Amino acid sequence: MIDAAAAWFRGLQDRICGALETLDGPGRFRQDEWTRPGGGGGRTRVLAGGALFEKAGVNISDVHGELPGELAASTPGQGRAFRATGISLVLHPLSPMVPTVHANFRCLAKGEATWFGGGADLTPFYPVREDVVHFHRSLRAACDAHDPGYYPRFKKACDEYFFLPHRGEARGVGGIFFDYLQGDLDRIFAFVRDAGEAFVPAYVPIAARRRDDPWGEREREFQLHRRGRYVEFNLIHDRGTVFGLKTGGRTESILMSLPPLVRWTYAQTPEPGSREALLSEYLKPTDWLAGTTIPGGST
Amino acid sequence: MIDAAAAWFRGLQDRICGALETLDGPGRFRQDEWTRPGGGGGRTRVLAGGALFEKAGVNISDVHGELPGELAASTPGQGRAFRATGISLVLHPLSPMVPTVHANFRCLAKGEATWFGGGADLTPFYPVREDVVHFHRSLRAACDAHDPGYYPRFKKACDEYFFLPHRGEARGVGGIFFDYLQGDLDRIFAFVRDAGEAFVPAYVPIAARRRDDPWGEREREFQLHRRGRYVEFNLIHDRGTVFGLKTGGRTESILMSLPPLVRWTYAQTPEPGSREALLSEYLKPTDWLAGTTIPGGST
Repeated sequence: MIDAAAAWFRGLQDRICGALETLDGPGRFRQDEWTRPGGGGGRTRVLAGGALFEKAGVNISDVHGELPGELAASTPGQGRAFRATGISLVLHPLSPMVPTVHANFRCLAKGEATWFGGGADLTPFYPVREDVVHFHRSLRAACDAHDPGYYPRFKKACDEYFFLPHRGEARGVGGIFFDYLQGDLDRIFAFVRDAGEAFVPAYVPIAARRRDDPWGEREREFQLHRRGRYVEFNLIHDRGTVFGLKTGGRTESILMSLPPLVRWTYAQTPEPGSREALLSEYLKPTDWLAGTTIPGGST
Repeated sequence: MIDAAAAWFRGLQDRICGALETLDGPGRFRQDEWTRPGGGGGRTRVLAGGALFEKAGVNISDVHGELPGELAASTPGQGRAFRATGISLVLHPLSPMVPTVHANFRCLAKGEATWFGGGADLTPFYPVREDVVHFHRSLRAACDAHDPGYYPRFKKACDEYFFLPHRGEARGVGGIFFDYLQGDLDRIFAFVRDAGEAFVPAYVPIAARRRDDPWGEREREFQLHRRGRYVEFNLIHDRGTVFGLKTGGRTESILMSLPPLVRWTYAQTPEPGSREALLSEYLKPTDWLAGTTIPGGST
């Protein structure tokens, strides 16, 4: 199973990078193939300085070895020998009007256990409700095709996971998040494939319709400020980042998720009533699809 | 003892802020007094957009309450009730030719235990050996006046603590770091006072002699890139940051340590032989004072 997953992640990286290059226009991904001293390796692709993307990273890896004791104790399966393969992407658009986005799909094996994890979440700076609904609706359709319980469960898990307790706010408007999916692996893998393929149609239309929205220095400054929260989440809370750094992963590939330019200003608070202040209304767990129906969505 | 320490930290904040305003010229600290819901509070001072300092934060706090279980288990003294008071500062100059610097001195009490911790470390971008030696010599003089064993021990602890394993490099050129200093508290407090008062003469002359060194876009970009490592250390490794965020500290005061503007560029490596490449020679534990003597230093 994990071999099949690894091969599929590899193909998904090609398809996603192709779609993102088409979307960007002149931007091209640069590829680094790397090997991990402890076993395995990966293929990191970064598009920097594009027309749409200031920095976009799409990474696949397939690594194996021995987990450190604490990580071995906190994951399913016997022993410490593990294999982990997956795809991880974070896109940082230049325009503050286009949301930042993250997606990750992975398959792990340790001892007798094999499981899938993953998800996708959207982080707008100037949120548009229609975009948020489109993103969630796309992910829900992928979930509903496999299990009507998936979306509500994974949407809630996403809200819980992508939360910054020290800021009292969500990282963005959420999406789906799942981990330790074990059991009928054929069925689960089929779901993961659909979720992975849903990424491009969930994100690209949003980027396409916001990319020409006007912005200036004020919006850029707000974006740089908000990117600080993204860094805080990734370095303080993100399990994937911690897992990667602790298992001797390739630092540059793991930290490609960090934004290209970030500002921290002491005690910066948007003026009440401003467009920037509106964002905080979106950074709370919200049922974005309440009252909406999914045309053609199966249940 | 901890009352006396709290009062002294308060005075030290005034003296350091006064010296830094004089050094900066037009820059002035803005003060926020705050209270902590769980008990206690602090006084945060930030100077932003000065002539020398892009962002300088000098914070004192005196907080008390109950430690979370994991923190209570990993610190000296019985029970969970604690009080912690201290001063913490991080200075981010605008000029890449002037080093970033950090210092922190603190006193904690929990159950029957009272202890001091603290230190100071320097993070240059374009290091000058004479500056590094001056910084270490100033701190060694403060140490030597109390115990000839302090400097070697605290210098080594600093090298070990301010290290980024995922980058395989030190945060900067070190300084001193000490923690859990218990026992003869009068003697220890006398040392902490001398170490705290040593900060201004250790740092200010370096900033004064480098502030007019010329720099341009290239040096600025390198500084923004290197500041990324500072963020990585503070959010991934720094015990004070983690302690503060986990004990419900004031987020803006804790994260005032983060640089004002930061850049992460994928796989950025200085050209071999460039001035930027020289920095890596400095980011290794080094006996900066080997072969030097301290005029007037007691042993």
